[in-house]
Amino acid sequence: MNKTRVLTGITTTGTPHLGNYVGAIKPAIEASQDPNVRSYYFLADLHALIKSQDPQRIRDSRLEIAATWLALGLDTDNAVFYRQSDIPEIPELTWLLSCVCAKGLMNRAHAYKAAVAENEAAGNQDPDRGVTMGLFGYPVLMAADILMFNAHKVPVGRDQVQHLEMARDIAGRFNHLYRGEYFTAPQAVVDEHVEVLGGLDGRKMSKSYNNTIPLFVSEKKLLKLIRKIKTNSLEPGQPKDPQGCTIFQIYRAFATREQSEAMRRRYVEGIGWGDAKNELFELLNAQLRDPRERYQALMEDPAYIERVLAKGAEKARAEAAPFMDRLRQVVGLGRFV
Amino acid sequence: MNKTRVLTGITTTGTPHLGNYVGAIKPAIEASQDPNVRSYYFLADLHALIKSQDPQRIRDSRLEIAATWLALGLDTDNAVFYRQSDIPEIPELTWLLSCVCAKGLMNRAHAYKAAVAENEAAGNQDPDRGVTMGLFGYPVLMAADILMFNAHKVPVGRDQVQHLEMARDIAGRFNHLYRGEYFTAPQAVVDEHVEVLGGLDGRKMSKSYNNTIPLFVSEKKLLKLIRKIKTNSLEPGQPKDPQGCTIFQIYRAFATREQSEAMRRRYVEGIGWGDAKNELFELLNAQLRDPRERYQALMEDPAYIERVLAKGAEKARAEAAPFMDRLRQVVGLGRFV
Repeated sequence: MNKTRVLTGITTTGTPHLGNYVGAIKPAIEASQDPNVRSYYFLADLHALIKSQDPQRIRDSRLEIAATWLALGLDTDNAVFYRQSDIPEIPELTWLLSCVCAKGLMNRAHAYKAAVAENEAAGNQDPDRGVTMGLFGYPVLMAADILMFNAHKVPVGRDQVQHLEMARDIAGRFNHLYRGEYFTAPQAVVDEHVEVLGGLDGRKMSKSYNNTIPLFVSEKKLLKLIRKIKTNSLEPGQPKDPQGCTIFQIYRAFATREQSEAMRRRYVEGIGWGDAKNELFELLNAQLRDPRERYQALMEDPAYIERVLAKGAEKARAEAAPFMDRLRQVVGLGRFV
Repeated sequence: MNKTRVLTGITTTGTPHLGNYVGAIKPAIEASQDPNVRSYYFLADLHALIKSQDPQRIRDSRLEIAATWLALGLDTDNAVFYRQSDIPEIPELTWLLSCVCAKGLMNRAHAYKAAVAENEAAGNQDPDRGVTMGLFGYPVLMAADILMFNAHKVPVGRDQVQHLEMARDIAGRFNHLYRGEYFTAPQAVVDEHVEVLGGLDGRKMSKSYNNTIPLFVSEKKLLKLIRKIKTNSLEPGQPKDPQGCTIFQIYRAFATREQSEAMRRRYVEGIGWGDAKNELFELLNAQLRDPRERYQALMEDPAYIERVLAKGAEKARAEAAPFMDRLRQVVGLGRFV
């Protein structure tokens, strides 16, 4: 198997929204159709435990995300689509990697340093206040996610580039200590042109700002949310600037080039905000109607999703289990005969 | 099952010696025969990776230790005897516990603080020099070892009492966060009267001093090593003090009360060192001859040891797997249906 291996983890603490779709889900699903690529997509539910001790939220989010990716046409015959917590080899590898990973490396992780800085700014005596071992050791788990499948490429945001460096460092250390090329050094792939959508209030669409438009709400709710998008006070007939306008930005992300150009002209001609919002709704709804129906059907059939993920776990473990057997032997564990 | 559960981990980086036998192995094997106790003994080979990156050493040590315990009569029908690395639920639980364990707790671990102090004393700029994430996070793995089987009691040396406190702390935190009594708070059992044998040079018998008498060397080698035990220059016929004498101390650890008393009298009567060493050899050899033969036969049959450990892993996983299933559900992981 000489295909390029590309691995993508999906954190399971929220409900997918338009911003996730445009910035991550859509390009990932498109990339998975490349015949020269072997794609791995996983629900990063072990990582979710770092951020959330709310079991119901994690449970719901995992189901919603799996249903979303399937509804949008992820080809699970071509790609390997699995739940991280179904692969016991991953926490096992995490321990093996912990034993070759310098603590100093983790001390320098941005996320950890940010937590310490926040504590210091708040005048907390303990700089590690609120920091769990999960948060501190998270880059080692991420290294195991990647190295388990010897991924060549990992599409990530800027904030994750350091973690990829750490995975490379840990891989190199293990290869050196145990004298072999067990692990491939993974490369971060940062899409510089990734579309970041604005949310209801004009700031970046993000769960933490509570300004999202979920991908698969009902038609009625979708229209209601679109009507809530903040606009300026220009009247119908007055020319409007599409640049920096959240409505136009979302429209463009879903439209063809021709549709975008037509809308741009209507802005200059003075389209009213109400009409612009209706146009956005029509465009989105036309594209989301079918996947939304599939999504709703999937959400009502968790047993089907379970079967799809079980099949994915089987494919993932068909690689992970023999590799882990080999790694156990390499470090001196494994069976005597 | 209302029996008291007692759990003992055996680090697999060395070859068992007389000091291990008297101080740990013998009492543990005796304790395992108590019908009111369910005993768990495991080869702590995941822990061994913290101390050693020498695969052959870990491999040999695991086999030697398993053969030693079996040769000495560990009842593997009554006790659960397994290899830590055969229980994938343990690293999995380690991750779950990491996500509820404060990093601050680990900052205060004696072993970690000692490593930092050593670096500071050596003038190293990086206080974490040489500290891996394995060494730093080791108490979380130890907590998983214990909590996986809800052990009531863990026989430990003084230096491990803090780790038991940490396991209790982590168990309490998990129970609190997820609102249930999932984990039993384990208790450290410190034997205040544990016999610490002297080694060839009179210091504590320890692998790190290179002064040990391995438990199952050949007769010839055993005699040779005993002859090497350091003594003072008192001549035969001169009265000798049994107190503080390594030969007498080892003798007493293996002898009946009557044999000890007889030997004590011979010291006062002025037994020569050569004769004392011969007596010690005879006593040890009589007791070790049979288990040594069993040990050698076992060492030549790793497939048998593998079968015994596979049976132990099966027993351990019959508890660990359903418990882990339950814990996954509790935190929001696990299957959808």
